[in-house]
Formats: sequence, structure tokens, C-alpha cells
Amino acid sequence: MAKSSENELPHKCFGWAAKDSSGILSPFHFSRRENGPNDVAIKILFCGVCHSDVHSVKNDWGFTTYPVVPGHEIVGIVTKTGENVKKFKVGDRVGVGVIVESCKECDICQQDLECYCSKLVFTYNSPYYDGTRTQGGFSDFVVVHERFVLQFPDNLPLDAGAPLLCAGITVYSPMIYYGMTEPGKLMGVAGLGGLGHVAVKFAKAFGLKVTVISNSPNKESDAIERLGADSFILSTDTATLKAAIRTMDYIIDTIPSDHSLNSLLSLLKPNGKLITVGLLNKPLELTTFPLVMGRKLIGGSTLGGLKETQDMLDFCGKHSIVADIELIKIDQINTAIERIVNSDVKYRFVVDVANSLSTTS
Amino acid sequence: MAKSSENELPHKCFGWAAKDSSGILSPFHFSRRENGPNDVAIKILFCGVCHSDVHSVKNDWGFTTYPVVPGHEIVGIVTKTGENVKKFKVGDRVGVGVIVESCKECDICQQDLECYCSKLVFTYNSPYYDGTRTQGGFSDFVVVHERFVLQFPDNLPLDAGAPLLCAGITVYSPMIYYGMTEPGKLMGVAGLGGLGHVAVKFAKAFGLKVTVISNSPNKESDAIERLGADSFILSTDTATLKAAIRTMDYIIDTIPSDHSLNSLLSLLKPNGKLITVGLLNKPLELTTFPLVMGRKLIGGSTLGGLKETQDMLDFCGKHSIVADIELIKIDQINTAIERIVNSDVKYRFVVDVANSLSTTS
Repeated sequence: MAKSSENELPHKCFGWAAKDSSGILSPFHFSRRENGPNDVAIKILFCGVCHSDVHSVKNDWGFTTYPVVPGHEIVGIVTKTGENVKKFKVGDRVGVGVIVESCKECDICQQDLECYCSKLVFTYNSPYYDGTRTQGGFSDFVVVHERFVLQFPDNLPLDAGAPLLCAGITVYSPMIYYGMTEPGKLMGVAGLGGLGHVAVKFAKAFGLKVTVISNSPNKESDAIERLGADSFILSTDTATLKAAIRTMDYIIDTIPSDHSLNSLLSLLKPNGKLITVGLLNKPLELTTFPLVMGRKLIGGSTLGGLKETQDMLDFCGKHSIVADIELIKIDQINTAIERIVNSDVKYRFVVDVANSLSTTS
Repeated sequence: MAKSSENELPHKCFGWAAKDSSGILSPFHFSRRENGPNDVAIKILFCGVCHSDVHSVKNDWGFTTYPVVPGHEIVGIVTKTGENVKKFKVGDRVGVGVIVESCKECDICQQDLECYCSKLVFTYNSPYYDGTRTQGGFSDFVVVHERFVLQFPDNLPLDAGAPLLCAGITVYSPMIYYGMTEPGKLMGVAGLGGLGHVAVKFAKAFGLKVTVISNSPNKESDAIERLGADSFILSTDTATLKAAIRTMDYIIDTIPSDHSLNSLLSLLKPNGKLITVGLLNKPLELTTFPLVMGRKLIGGSTLGGLKETQDMLDFCGKHSIVADIELIKIDQINTAIERIVNSDVKYRFVVDVANSLSTTS
């Protein structure tokens, strides 16, 4: 007889899981592996709620295995270290992001690009090398190979810092890789949500000018007054869009739903770069003419390698960058998910895991 | 009364023009401007026939003004130089490509990227700064500002070299700009026509491995035996395509008709680059998932600046690269156009202008 989730592995763990494609989370008892020689055990304090969590619990991408405990913007305190662990000690403030394992041997891993390894293991909803399935951060603790654990800067608050582990690195990495950090250049940030609002903060820290492009008129004051963007374009305002044609050096496109790539491409100068980081279900239409005639590029990017993620956290520590969050208790998670679907969050929910999980067990 | 094309400007010129969207060319008398102080007059010897000529004469892009004399792969001999001309003397073997003027003052021109200047003037079917319209190379001579004239390498034949002025620079420039020249890397060349076959030659000269991707099974032997490609993928052969997934570092996409970007993207390794140089009428479908999850990019590129075009010609001289051509007389041009539409040319038609135009006047 197969062991139950709760008894399969040596350490009992408790969290909230979605049990089916309704996507509704509820309390869930499961188990985690023994702390191996290279592993770090972490008591989870906070965990951000990412749009990917919403897609995963609702099986929007078609590869969710239930029950699934989501959550991949994890911060907490080290409670145990394996005998080979060198980078961490008990009591350290640490983070875990979207991936918890890779082959460590391929060309890609050798280049510290674990997030592009063909054998990567996601923090949840992924088959682990021992045959079990990974479960995420809406739970009381997690066991992770030290390579996939980050030191959290001392000066940053853990709750508002949690979203850096996914939202932060997702927008930071392409800015580095595609060379979008030259001071004085103009960057458009399309979509002002969890990713977009952090992108604005990074861009300003790099010395860029920033124009936020959004279909929500009520985000204009936030963009400029709260986040420090230099200007705002309402994407339904064709006159303003027209005036901005051929003005931008870079655009980072965080829009999570169907939209016009051609309209964004038209805003770029020749040699401009449009970087898309959203994982959309449906194909977009691409007219290659403006790409060709303006030597423009559309680049993708997801996350970043672990070394780069540490660089990003250190950069955030230096520039005091964290997310703007709404802190919630775990029993508010289903409401939070619905609000994310309706783009009704400024700008990231973070679950106060340690202070609310125990009351639901 | 408006002056006729033949008498509008001081120098009478003769060529073949399309008079309407049937795209059929026939003899046409027109005139060209006085040779200004910065201009070079060129007796046209040969002119390549580009797929863009076909689109232009048939008004596929919707902006053709008739009559139009096409042809922008021009080679010939300098017959006159203006008083300020420094780079050329009478008798020089020279080339003229797709553009004949730009503002020379904007940021883009200052970077020697005249082909991306917003005020560029195409070699034909374009309003010139003096209010007249440009006419192309299927004609007996042309007058061009010296900045837009290229020195042709002594060791290359002019007829087979003519296509380098458009097809050549169109595939060379993105290889340089997007960093696709690292020896030993694997480049896919999608589409084996005028552009694709030159791309194979450049790639081999740079020391790349080359896989040709084509929907024509009869091009396999040409690709490998005649052009030196390392392998061939028939794009309708799903098993071979599947085996090639995640194997390529770069792809240059020269396919001039509707096709699957997603299928090409799947062939790229992480960090791979798909460069599109075709000017398609219809939008293509793009699924952003593989772009994001593999940090891949789709880049566009058209032509190259004049300095880079000279670099390309010098590179061709050094490596003895020319196009594979079928030399035709001007009165075969309409047949040639229909054969281009049917992809029935190996691999570029070139018109023997000087030796056939006079017999039709």
C-alpha cells in the first residue's frame, strides 16, 4: 500500500494545498524528506503569492498534480544544516525562490543558469529526484539543497522582501542579460503589478528614465508618486501612445494576459528591446515588419541563476528595494487569489505564514 | 503642365518598369538628376533580382507608386564624380544597394546605421529629397551620393557579386550584431533561397556548423554538396525536427511566407537566438512560453549601414563569397519574377543589364 502524503517521508509538515482545479486552498498534512548532508532546513516565516501560484492551483497550464501546496517566494530562518553545508548556519535569514534543484552538471548549470537546466525541479508541483513531489512555501518548513538557498540582506524586512525571490529576479535578470541598465535610457514598464512595480524600482536604481504603460487609469498616481516613474501611458489612449512612438530604448513586458506586441514594438526606437516575462496561455500576434525594419528584438527571460539571484538580493540591500505588499493570514489566501485574478492588489500579497498557519492546523 | 518622367530631370535614362500592380515590367523612358558635387554617376552593368522587387512591382506591401523601375543590387562602373567626391574615381568598380540617401545627421546616421534612419530613401519607389521619385537598377545608369556607394572587391565577379548588396548584407549584418559568429556553434538557416544560400556561405566562413531547414526535399543535396552545410532538416519531417529540438545556438529565418516561429524556437538551446529577416505581409503566431522558459530571443534586422556593407564586401573578397546565380537578359525579367514567386531559382537571378538593355530601347 502506498504511503499517504503525511507519512511518505520522515518529517511531518503542515500547509495549505489546492486539492483540485477549483484552485481553493485548504489545510493539508504532508511530509518532507530527511535533511541530507547538503541540505538546509528552513522554518518558513513569510511567503509571497505570485500570479504563477494562481495559474498552478487552477491548472491553467495543464500540468498541475493535486494536492499542490503553492508558494515560491519563501523567507525564513535556518533551523538545521547538513554536514556538508558551508554557506549557512542555524539562525541565518534566508530565502528560497522558484527552483530547488537542477542537475548541476550540464553546460547550463556550469554557467550558473540553473533555471534553464532541462532537469530543474520547481519548488512545488514538480517531481523531485527521489520520486516524491515538491511542495511549496505555504507550509511550516522546507528542506532545500544549499545551492538553492539565498542569504537575505540584513537590512531588508523579510515580509516585503519575500517577493524579490520570484518577482524581483524575474525582472532584474533580463535587465542585466539584455543590457538594459544604461543610465539615462528610457525604459517602458508594461503592466504595473507584482513584477512591474519592482521593475520600476530596479530601473530607477539603475538610473533609467521610466514610463509605465498600463490599461488602468487609477495606477497613474501610484506609478509616478509612489513608485517614482517619470511618466505614465494609458494603453487605451491612442493619442498618447502615438506621441510615444519610437521613443523608448527598452520595454519590459509584464502583462499577464492577451495584448498587442506590435503596439509595444512601435514605442521602441531602432535597436530597441522588448523583453517579455509573462507566461501567457495563448499565442500573441507578431508582425515581423517592425522587428525587421527597426532591428528590434523580443526577448524572453525567466527567473535567474542562483548566483545572479544572490546578486539581485545584494543590490536590493544596497538600494533598499523591497516590494509593496499587503500582508495577509493564510486563511485569507483564497480571497487573495481571487483579488489577484482581478488585478486588485498593490502590489503583492505576502502570507504571514509563521503567525497564522499554526492557528489553522 | 507637369513635366514627363522622361524630361523632368536633366539626364535621360532608360530602363524597365512596372506600370501597374500586374507587376509586369516593360521598357520605360525616364530621367535622372544632375550629378551633384557629392554624387557619383554609375553605368550599370548587372543588377540582381530580389524578392522585394517582386513584392514592390505587385504592390504587395501597398505603397508602390507606378511606374516603378525596381532593382537594388546594382553593380557597375563609375563614369563621373562630383567635385567633393573623395572615395571614388572614374573607372572604379562599385556597388549600390537598397538605400541611396538618409539624413546623415540623426543619432542613427551618426552610428553609421543609415538603413534605420527615419528619413532614409530607398533606391527605388521612394520620394527623394528634391521631390522626385527614385528609380532602381534595371536601367542604364544611376546617380548616387558617394556615402551610399560601395567599392567592389577586385577579385569578385560583378555579376555573381551583385546580390551581396542586398541578400548578402541582410544576412551578414544580424550575424555580427547579434553575435552569431562564434566558431563551432550550430546555426540553423531556415529557407534556402537568395538570402539563405548566402547565409550558409557566411556561416561556414565564420567557422560555424550549419543545418539548413527547408520544406523542399530537393534542396538537401544542394545544401550539403553544393553549399557545404553540415546537415539538412526537411521541415515537414516531424521525426527529424523532434530530434533536433534544443540543439541549435542560432537560427536565421529567411522564409518569405507564413510559417511557424514556435517550431523554429523549439530547435534552439536555452539562450538561443532566432533572427528574422523576411518581410512578411501577415502576422505570425508567437507563443511566448518557450521564449521565456529558454531565455530565447527573436530579433529582426534589415540590411546594414554603409560602413558595415563595405566590411561585408571586403569579407566576401577575402573569403571569395558570391551568390549562386542565373544570369538573364532584361527581356526575361517577367519570367524570372514568376519563377521567384514559385521558388524556382538557384539561387538569385541577375540581369545582364548593360548587354541586354540597349537591345530593347
